[in-house]
Amino acid sequence: MRRAFRAAPAIAAAMLLLATPARAYDDPVTKQAFEMPSYTTVGGKTIKKVRVGWEAYGKLSPNKDNVILITHFFSGDSHAAGKYKPGDAAPGYWNSIIGPGKPLDTNKYYVISSDTLVNLSAKNPGVVTTGPASINPDTGKPYGMDFPIVTIRDFVNVQKALLESLGITRLEAVMGASMGALQAIEWATAYPGMVKRVIPVIGAGEIDGWTAGWLDIWASPIRLDPNWNNGAYYGKAEPEAGLALALKIVTLHAQNPARINKAFGKKWAKEGADPLASFDNLYAVSASLNGAAAARAKVADANHFLYLARANELFGAGHGGSLEDGLKKIKAPMLLLPAKGDLLLFPAMSARVRDIVKANGGQVEYLELVGDFGHLDGVIGIAQASDAIRAFLAK
Amino acid sequence: MRRAFRAAPAIAAAMLLLATPARAYDDPVTKQAFEMPSYTTVGGKTIKKVRVGWEAYGKLSPNKDNVILITHFFSGDSHAAGKYKPGDAAPGYWNSIIGPGKPLDTNKYYVISSDTLVNLSAKNPGVVTTGPASINPDTGKPYGMDFPIVTIRDFVNVQKALLESLGITRLEAVMGASMGALQAIEWATAYPGMVKRVIPVIGAGEIDGWTAGWLDIWASPIRLDPNWNNGAYYGKAEPEAGLALALKIVTLHAQNPARINKAFGKKWAKEGADPLASFDNLYAVSASLNGAAAARAKVADANHFLYLARANELFGAGHGGSLEDGLKKIKAPMLLLPAKGDLLLFPAMSARVRDIVKANGGQVEYLELVGDFGHLDGVIGIAQASDAIRAFLAK
Repeated sequence: MRRAFRAAPAIAAAMLLLATPARAYDDPVTKQAFEMPSYTTVGGKTIKKVRVGWEAYGKLSPNKDNVILITHFFSGDSHAAGKYKPGDAAPGYWNSIIGPGKPLDTNKYYVISSDTLVNLSAKNPGVVTTGPASINPDTGKPYGMDFPIVTIRDFVNVQKALLESLGITRLEAVMGASMGALQAIEWATAYPGMVKRVIPVIGAGEIDGWTAGWLDIWASPIRLDPNWNNGAYYGKAEPEAGLALALKIVTLHAQNPARINKAFGKKWAKEGADPLASFDNLYAVSASLNGAAAARAKVADANHFLYLARANELFGAGHGGSLEDGLKKIKAPMLLLPAKGDLLLFPAMSARVRDIVKANGGQVEYLELVGDFGHLDGVIGIAQASDAIRAFLAK
Repeated sequence: MRRAFRAAPAIAAAMLLLATPARAYDDPVTKQAFEMPSYTTVGGKTIKKVRVGWEAYGKLSPNKDNVILITHFFSGDSHAAGKYKPGDAAPGYWNSIIGPGKPLDTNKYYVISSDTLVNLSAKNPGVVTTGPASINPDTGKPYGMDFPIVTIRDFVNVQKALLESLGITRLEAVMGASMGALQAIEWATAYPGMVKRVIPVIGAGEIDGWTAGWLDIWASPIRLDPNWNNGAYYGKAEPEAGLALALKIVTLHAQNPARINKAFGKKWAKEGADPLASFDNLYAVSASLNGAAAARAKVADANHFLYLARANELFGAGHGGSLEDGLKKIKAPMLLLPAKGDLLLFPAMSARVRDIVKANGGQVEYLELVGDFGHLDGVIGIAQASDAIRAFLAK
């Protein structure tokens, strides 16, 4: 297309968020580490010296009965609100709803958020996780593909151990977006006696065949990269190109034509560089995606991506049996917050959870977030559900 | 998920179609080749000895005024109807609407269908095309990435030369699905005096930024494959893994959760091979996609895929200026047939064409195909539009 061209707005900005919130969470946020000497996975494998990071906003009440757990999305981590230091470029991803006077009111609640096992951003110094890039205490070398396959239930079990280490046995709510919603649902099915409310945002009751197919596609470029070397790349050239392509697919998949077409349209990446003239000449959308993905790849680990993708593929509420049986285990009232324009975990997936829970006589509310960002509206646009979240937590 | 497992139904069958038609096109179909000594592209490059295949159904009238041109989709070719020999496994892809007494009635119309330049299936002996895998007459070697970038307009221009070689100067209709719809629209904008009606099925008036981003993603695994070697792989190991991954993405993208979840759900690819136990154990959906893509890769050429993807990225009706300006050039009445469940070229893209043409005072009809196959409903489910097509052609 011989249309106008100008420098592309960074898609990274769209992805990595966000509008400055009305009121920031002002207390300093500190990343802490929780360690278990040994953890046995759902698959029956033992991992020694499991460490995950966590952070919290607000104050734990003397009775330890004011806790809300936040579970993070695929490419996210435990940094859900606030800043580590005043000069940080951006606060945590859900800062718009976590803080004093906000729906997750830190004057009232102790909001705790933890890094998962096999967290994507293994090279981000702000993330503490255990996965294939971690040193295997038995060999003194990174696990690579010897690390056991883990599941969403394993993420939940490690979080439970973290909470228990703090003396917390009851949660006012578990809330998470995307993969965080899968964890929130799994919490409510696995430990119904511990969870008072559950808020799955842009989630699903199970990863269906369609989404499992896509997750496998997301992961495939890593295996195609010759540097991947069956996962044994530590200390050598890493499969950065394959990882960047994987992240590029995720990034576009999590958005929506509305936003992409407004931001980029058919603009060329570079003035005078017509995509008709050379394969080196890209459209702005692709150049921007490439840039964002390459930046993300620098702090991510390729094997961690593979393990995360598989953990998601394996997910079904209750971890075994039918979706109906899994959801029957939930006792907590549920507030489902899908995004209308989500092309990754379609609103129909949340609607299915709603319908099954209703048919089982459970309590469930459902509100569709709107916006131009597709799946990401569940992260970027969460503040629009503020009233619904407040009301739900007050019940 | 520990759910039931059984052998996966072949996704290839779902893709490569389809139900036996009520009445087959019974006359023998013969692939023919059209050759131009030289063709100059929209980009100003000259290609010597351009050859494309074509076939036809029905009889050309003495006045040569009964011609319908069929333009093919991304992974397709000119085999739109009938069989080359009685023992062929399947007839051409739109056999359900092309034949005696069918909407594209071969008792009345001469239906002609041509292979495009840079056709994907360069190794299929039934396809005749010119592209990077062709021998450059100047060097005696395959062009590789020296082949010029071509556009949808170039596909149309070569088709026009083919028709002129047969003495055909007027088309009763141009009809095509997906990339075929882009060609149909381009025909009507480029040569409005030649085209009496246009039927774009599962198409768009332009490839928007969103879709251009996806096309670039489709092509990316090929560049990641070390065997690609900047396109200079002829006579050596070919980038089959990269090409297969590219085709895998296309295959899933062209479908819909409805069909995939009915066909596969969360079934394992192999009994007893739990995806929790090993990365080698896949869900049936992924194993089936891998099998279908690997089979397709055997007859496809990786560089042709790159050129096709770029031709599509470049598309906008009228090839220059705004979509509104491009569509203004169309004089022919239009029947738009998007598919309701299409997640690749959304119905909204056809609706936008409808709205612009209407606003311009043009004649346009719009009917959404339904089904479980997503984008592919435009190929597999076309017969549901039979009445609309008949009525449109009769006007």
